Amino acid sequence: MSTTQHDMVEVFDTTLRDGLQVEGVSATVDDKLRIAEQLDRLGVHYIEGGWPGANPKDVEFFARANAELRLTTSTMVAFGSTRRPRGKVDDDTTLRNLLDANTSAVCIVAKSWDYHVLEALQTTLDEGAAMIADSVEFLKANGRLVMVDMEHFFDGYKRNPEFSLRAIEAAVVNGASHLVLCDTNGGSLPHEVSQIVADVKRVVGNDATIGIHCHDDTGCAVANSMAAVLAGARHVQGTLNGLGERTGNCNLTTVIPNLQIKLGMQCLPEGRMEHLTAVSHHVAEILNRPLNPQAPYVGASAFAHKAGLHVSAIKRAKDAYEHVDPELVGNGTRFVVSEMAGRATIEMKAEELGLPMDGPAVNQVIDDLKRLEHEGYHFEAADASLELLMRHASGWSQQYFNVESMRVITDELPSGDFSTEATVKVWVGDTRHVHTAEGNGPVNAIDKALRTALAAAYPQLDRVHLTDYKVRILDGATATGAVTRVLIDFSNGARSWTTIGVSGNIIEASWRALEEGLVYGLLHAEA
Amino acid sequence: MSTTQHDMVEVFDTTLRDGLQVEGVSATVDDKLRIAEQLDRLGVHYIEGGWPGANPKDVEFFARANAELRLTTSTMVAFGSTRRPRGKVDDDTTLRNLLDANTSAVCIVAKSWDYHVLEALQTTLDEGAAMIADSVEFLKANGRLVMVDMEHFFDGYKRNPEFSLRAIEAAVVNGASHLVLCDTNGGSLPHEVSQIVADVKRVVGNDATIGIHCHDDTGCAVANSMAAVLAGARHVQGTLNGLGERTGNCNLTTVIPNLQIKLGMQCLPEGRMEHLTAVSHHVAEILNRPLNPQAPYVGASAFAHKAGLHVSAIKRAKDAYEHVDPELVGNGTRFVVSEMAGRATIEMKAEELGLPMDGPAVNQVIDDLKRLEHEGYHFEAADASLELLMRHASGWSQQYFNVESMRVITDELPSGDFSTEATVKVWVGDTRHVHTAEGNGPVNAIDKALRTALAAAYPQLDRVHLTDYKVRILDGATATGAVTRVLIDFSNGARSWTTIGVSGNIIEASWRALEEGLVYGLLHAEA
Repeated sequence: MSTTQHDMVEVFDTTLRDGLQVEGVSATVDDKLRIAEQLDRLGVHYIEGGWPGANPKDVEFFARANAELRLTTSTMVAFGSTRRPRGKVDDDTTLRNLLDANTSAVCIVAKSWDYHVLEALQTTLDEGAAMIADSVEFLKANGRLVMVDMEHFFDGYKRNPEFSLRAIEAAVVNGASHLVLCDTNGGSLPHEVSQIVADVKRVVGNDATIGIHCHDDTGCAVANSMAAVLAGARHVQGTLNGLGERTGNCNLTTVIPNLQIKLGMQCLPEGRMEHLTAVSHHVAEILNRPLNPQAPYVGASAFAHKAGLHVSAIKRAKDAYEHVDPELVGNGTRFVVSEMAGRATIEMKAEELGLPMDGPAVNQVIDDLKRLEHEGYHFEAADASLELLMRHASGWSQQYFNVESMRVITDELPSGDFSTEATVKVWVGDTRHVHTAEGNGPVNAIDKALRTALAAAYPQLDRVHLTDYKVRILDGATATGAVTRVLIDFSNGARSWTTIGVSGNIIEASWRALEEGLVYGLLHAEA
Repeated sequence: MSTTQHDMVEVFDTTLRDGLQVEGVSATVDDKLRIAEQLDRLGVHYIEGGWPGANPKDVEFFARANAELRLTTSTMVAFGSTRRPRGKVDDDTTLRNLLDANTSAVCIVAKSWDYHVLEALQTTLDEGAAMIADSVEFLKANGRLVMVDMEHFFDGYKRNPEFSLRAIEAAVVNGASHLVLCDTNGGSLPHEVSQIVADVKRVVGNDATIGIHCHDDTGCAVANSMAAVLAGARHVQGTLNGLGERTGNCNLTTVIPNLQIKLGMQCLPEGRMEHLTAVSHHVAEILNRPLNPQAPYVGASAFAHKAGLHVSAIKRAKDAYEHVDPELVGNGTRFVVSEMAGRATIEMKAEELGLPMDGPAVNQVIDDLKRLEHEGYHFEAADASLELLMRHASGWSQQYFNVESMRVITDELPSGDFSTEATVKVWVGDTRHVHTAEGNGPVNAIDKALRTALAAAYPQLDRVHLTDYKVRILDGATATGAVTRVLIDFSNGARSWTTIGVSGNIIEASWRALEEGLVYGLLHAEA
């Protein structure tokens, strides 16, 4: 489908404001600046940077953003609210802070559910409408593009459409460029959103752009946003990776390709959507918040295929097995290898890795996989261990280091405190390194000791960190005598990988996975 | 809204078949039986147990399910496919395996996209239709309720509706009870699903129930399923927690409350939806796959409110701040800053345990719980640890033994073998016992050493076994520097109990849980 002026949908990113309400994440001003750069690289129309005044960090953010960022595609937006009830715009602190943020565009939240005006603000509906009118007029008079987030719009409209439309009118007649209908509690469903947006569109016509701001409490934030666009909205607010409080905001990494690939709308400048996967992973990395591998479009599993049977068929006709071409969003087709894997899967995987493998090598891999998966290995989840296994089958072996021995000791002292230390003896070439490190647990201690031993020879390991560590006990029947499966996730900022170790001894299993993770990190730091 | 016969929507759970295609999970037959019990507790209409024949584990599953499970609300379903091209139903292995699974209902997958018939099956469209007709007729003649999963239905229908409807007809006229329209590649959007289901409904009328089976590749699996129901489908397939390959299947823990609370449809028997949160968490636990805290309805953050929002306002008018009452799905409102502890729950629990507790003791328990749950403890899953904590708050302390110190050493020898030994120094009354034991891992070694040290004084510990040992890393961000939560299950043959330990050090966490498990065993061996 070709795109015309009508097919343009603005993307408004609120990762740095609403997104950071997610539980368990706190971002520094530096983190926020790095994320803004990623958003500009992706090419969103608007970046909502924060709420200056409500949060002292956000004042610093806007000052530094103005001074340091060189945005090429995105416009920075400061967030605030309408003036306080019964107050004046000229001496309103919130509005003053908004102007001081010195952005060309602002977004203010306005109450559009009568209940919240009456009960939360404890004021009249007339004053509620006046707060919107005055604030928009004031910001507009100060040269700003003014967008208005209509808080609780859908819940309000269902109960008292008259007041909700009055709030809209107060914003439009005073010069708001955007009316953003917010499903603040996240309880709406697509058929309701569709109906209500259409109603608003009939009232507003072309006097302002209608926007949509959804939360995922019914699992429908993306579908609700799509429904709004189909009903006439042309501005979508959301966050990268669906960050946000409770169940999160509308996930831009899903809704952008849905709109652009499936509805033919233009959301990002030409050539930018292919950065989507990289930007999504990069932001997850900045916030230390692992990306869900099942995330649509950008997740590691989003285009992963099992079932060895189909691999050759997929190769022949990708669009019969994949809903979109993963390269459009910068992701790729991945073939998951497990014990059921046939020859074709291994061959495809080798090709994907750029590993030339002959027939005997492929047979070797198949035999190894069968044996190891029987022992409890599970290579589906451990791409890096699989690659090393395939390399070994082709005659490769790692020459980076050679472990002579390792020891880890955990003591409970009479004080009740615990202490753990690990010692590794390792050869790098002809040099023997013996290092001891303390850690807050055995895996942490052996990780530190091994890295210390390798640091001089391989400074590039500084960039490799462990991002997750998972343990599964197989065969519960024998409990601590059972086999332990350890998976460790690593990242070097540019690339993420997972290794696996299996043993009756959790320390051995962890050690195997750790060692392979560092080897893989060295192997791909070279490339 | 009152529910009538028309408002009933069947829930078909495929966690045990399609759900287990998720990357990185492998379930034992025991795991699958435990999950089936949870599904029956929740009250889903159908439990798809697996594909007998395609997977040897699934043959064992159906044999054991028939022998061991006492399902009270759910019907077990075996999955398979239509007969092979140009074959006969009488000697078709897949159909034979289906019958051998000995379930009253079966579900077979049928190709309904012409491309897949021609290219994947390499046969004619006539034969494609005949495969469906013959297979349904055969299974029906053998007394089965026959449901047909129409694979790639939406993609097929968009390209060649004539063949897709022919596939439907072949199933209906031969007695299929259900036509399940599958969005196999997951690329459809709600407005398309709505249209196509309505088309099919016009053709099928009331001759069969229309079902919907969605994948989440556009982030719309739940919305697509809702759209299908609004267009006439009355059977929804999905998985618990949205497990499934790629981006996962339609998440039943979201779609069930959406349908039941928001559309007034009846999906589960009266009184069952309140188990939803517990079942969701329990299944995540069985598969050792952390539940997304942002999951709608059942996630830990789903009804979490941040500071700043007025707690008293929420209390006064919950429906102004929460899209549904969280208790309907067995979840609860949570205030992120000021956690509400349940006095009444503690008092009930004390009564249940026969522990007399006064006001200050209850307050102490509430304080302890708050502090420990903040550290990562989770007492819901650890009944024995909760009981000991409550006893401590009432002034009790265990007099069985007193640990002076503990040490565990793990060595990797130059041979590459690992050895682990633990030494404990423990007092029983006035006697000091020092014992060392080797184990195949640190927890096994400390368990053995402690038991050896206590054996003379407490022969009743002979009957206490560890039955499971689970490890969860909390806060993946810092990986091996993160907090480790260990749960250990014990049994003495007559009684089972679980303890919990949390620490930055996995050895300390394991040791705490182990020690409490033995104390609990001694306490209740007396009784």
